[in-house]
Amino acid sequence: MSTNSFAADGARVLADLNTLRQMGAYKTGVHKPTFSEPHLQSLHWLTDRLAEAGLAPTIDGIGNVLGTSNKSGPKLLAGSHLESQNYAGWLDGPLGVVYALEAARVINARDNISGAVEVVSWCDKEGHFGPLLGSRSYIGDVSNAAIDAARDRTSGRPLREALAAAGLAGRERLRAEPGRHIGYLEAHIEQGDRLERAALKIGVVTAIVGIWQYEITFTGQQNHAGTTAMDVRADAGLALARFCVAIDEAFPKACGPRTVWTTGHISLDPGAPSIIPGMAKMQFQIRDTDPAIIGRLEGVLDELGAAATATGPCAVAVKRLRTGKPALMDESIQAAFESAGSSHAAGKSIRMPSGAGHDAQMLATVMPAGMMFVPSIGGISHHWTENTSDADIVTGAQVFVAACAKLLGAEAAR
Amino acid sequence: MSTNSFAADGARVLADLNTLRQMGAYKTGVHKPTFSEPHLQSLHWLTDRLAEAGLAPTIDGIGNVLGTSNKSGPKLLAGSHLESQNYAGWLDGPLGVVYALEAARVINARDNISGAVEVVSWCDKEGHFGPLLGSRSYIGDVSNAAIDAARDRTSGRPLREALAAAGLAGRERLRAEPGRHIGYLEAHIEQGDRLERAALKIGVVTAIVGIWQYEITFTGQQNHAGTTAMDVRADAGLALARFCVAIDEAFPKACGPRTVWTTGHISLDPGAPSIIPGMAKMQFQIRDTDPAIIGRLEGVLDELGAAATATGPCAVAVKRLRTGKPALMDESIQAAFESAGSSHAAGKSIRMPSGAGHDAQMLATVMPAGMMFVPSIGGISHHWTENTSDADIVTGAQVFVAACAKLLGAEAAR
Repeated sequence: MSTNSFAADGARVLADLNTLRQMGAYKTGVHKPTFSEPHLQSLHWLTDRLAEAGLAPTIDGIGNVLGTSNKSGPKLLAGSHLESQNYAGWLDGPLGVVYALEAARVINARDNISGAVEVVSWCDKEGHFGPLLGSRSYIGDVSNAAIDAARDRTSGRPLREALAAAGLAGRERLRAEPGRHIGYLEAHIEQGDRLERAALKIGVVTAIVGIWQYEITFTGQQNHAGTTAMDVRADAGLALARFCVAIDEAFPKACGPRTVWTTGHISLDPGAPSIIPGMAKMQFQIRDTDPAIIGRLEGVLDELGAAATATGPCAVAVKRLRTGKPALMDESIQAAFESAGSSHAAGKSIRMPSGAGHDAQMLATVMPAGMMFVPSIGGISHHWTENTSDADIVTGAQVFVAACAKLLGAEAAR
Repeated sequence: MSTNSFAADGARVLADLNTLRQMGAYKTGVHKPTFSEPHLQSLHWLTDRLAEAGLAPTIDGIGNVLGTSNKSGPKLLAGSHLESQNYAGWLDGPLGVVYALEAARVINARDNISGAVEVVSWCDKEGHFGPLLGSRSYIGDVSNAAIDAARDRTSGRPLREALAAAGLAGRERLRAEPGRHIGYLEAHIEQGDRLERAALKIGVVTAIVGIWQYEITFTGQQNHAGTTAMDVRADAGLALARFCVAIDEAFPKACGPRTVWTTGHISLDPGAPSIIPGMAKMQFQIRDTDPAIIGRLEGVLDELGAAATATGPCAVAVKRLRTGKPALMDESIQAAFESAGSSHAAGKSIRMPSGAGHDAQMLATVMPAGMMFVPSIGGISHHWTENTSDADIVTGAQVFVAACAKLLGAEAAR
């Protein structure tokens, strides 16, 4: 039996992705927030395709779609997500779902494989209502109280209302069944330009970084911008600016080779041109696969805050909002991706960490998990211009299907 | 005739101010945005008081209230404003209106003065719909198109809608009548702590600073906060922070003794914790009474912007949104306030510039104008804790009434 016997149908993969692209199309990308009409349409499209592929489809009480197989033997879970960030790219999510669907179509019907690929679409990976909501629910990390409290971050719509409108109120939420799956596989666009810059085609993910999120608050004295002399001001906005510059000077001396840190949001209170801000806040995050490095950087952050408070005139408070857990990817899944890559993109794969968060990091807490990346043109992500060449999409599909077949024990895929 | 014959009735002044404080009361201050119910109530309260004082009241098509006298002889225009900033102080505005009303009550009935004090309440000095809207309308600086376009900065309510709801749609707008007034007088709380720190009671305003307002835009490259390495980032937020710090280092070397500068608003685009901001904007203002100093500082700002753009990785654009015109206060009005101050607060007045903007700066373009300040406790302004002691309020009223009488030629006020 040749490798080709587990070949993905590249034209079918591209056709499926382009069909999903029409749902919520925005310029060359999509606008498909969680539980929007085009998102629900995409979920229902998937359940139809799953049934055609011989899988039993379910949409659960949080919007996860799962297609299960009644075949005996080992089972792989594979997928990604179908909603998008607002006005974002067409492949971020759907690529991994369609690869998983294609793997199920190519592999499950074969008599020479005893097991099956089961396909999943995790709901709200993009966190319109909560980060990695569906996969967290699946591993048992989302309480009913959290669902009661969740609202769409853009519109403020309650999650309960969105679930009811989608006809999902009252449905059970699927939970991971211990022992059912031998592993979880997810394909995704890289969202960076490392593959493209090195003319590589496949990234085999070694670990998904943890994200440590901080809110840093600066407290000064609100006052009139015209009547308050410069020497008596306690300008919280200026204190924040000084702090950003201090981080930028101190962190490179303590970080790891791939650490990244970002101030993504700043607000001044009250934020009027003629009022000296009495309070300022910044959202700051650090990402690394090594908690020891993060620990060191958090120490630097605390020292900078204490030093700024001691110097005055504003007080600085550093509060950790979220403690990231880096997720290590399973070694045998990495090996399967690498081996499949050597068949379909010889010399063009590389092992690399993921700087972005993915559902695979949640799955990794309950089963062996692995991820692979395909190149992002220009490294662009979370923007409607995000893209990957058709040839790279098809190569990725071949590698993904071959890796699934290999993990299910098909010699031919080796 | 003694000075006392032009004495303000301190109890009446305090009673009026406390009546206005009840309209839109918020903690110990008021929340009285322009054309809110409590603001309209305050305007109608004023028209009743003007009529009682023998003045003919009008509310015009922009919400200015004017009480005119049919007495012959020289006329002074005196007043301030009745709306407040959101959740702000009780005296910022009403103090000057009640002093003017008191001056009209004390002076206009006297046969030994041929002229009269006419009383005005300028609408929306606080700029809910547009800065110094009423006084700018009075000097002919507000077009109908500008009124069509104006919206409440908090609620977004169109000005036309607010005017219609207030019953003012279609009314004419009052315009300054050349030659009608020999001058404009306005009293106000200081909004700073210079008087209090020096145990002074009266500030005689020499000039109102001009406000130069800038929008400074930083353009970088929006990207994913996890997948983009530090060395390839063009983080517009970090560029903004560096710029704020650079201003803070460069301006003290080029500023005047009373120059102030403020970054009151910052926004990052898109402003999400996991996205490197591709664009950032800051609202920056400079205030001084000397345009030459501002010119020098604007040069520094442009140089800093050009240097930052040249260094990269972000481009900096400095755009002047508003060119301030410092307004010099009339020398004879300053002398009248000073002379009245020497009678009622001997040795406790000082000449000083105003760092805040006031309606008097608009009036100064069409007639001689002058202002006086009373102390602000703790220098607090634009906050509901703003306050002035009752004794200082009464002293200020005496000085204001005496200065009006003096300018109208009453020997007794000298």
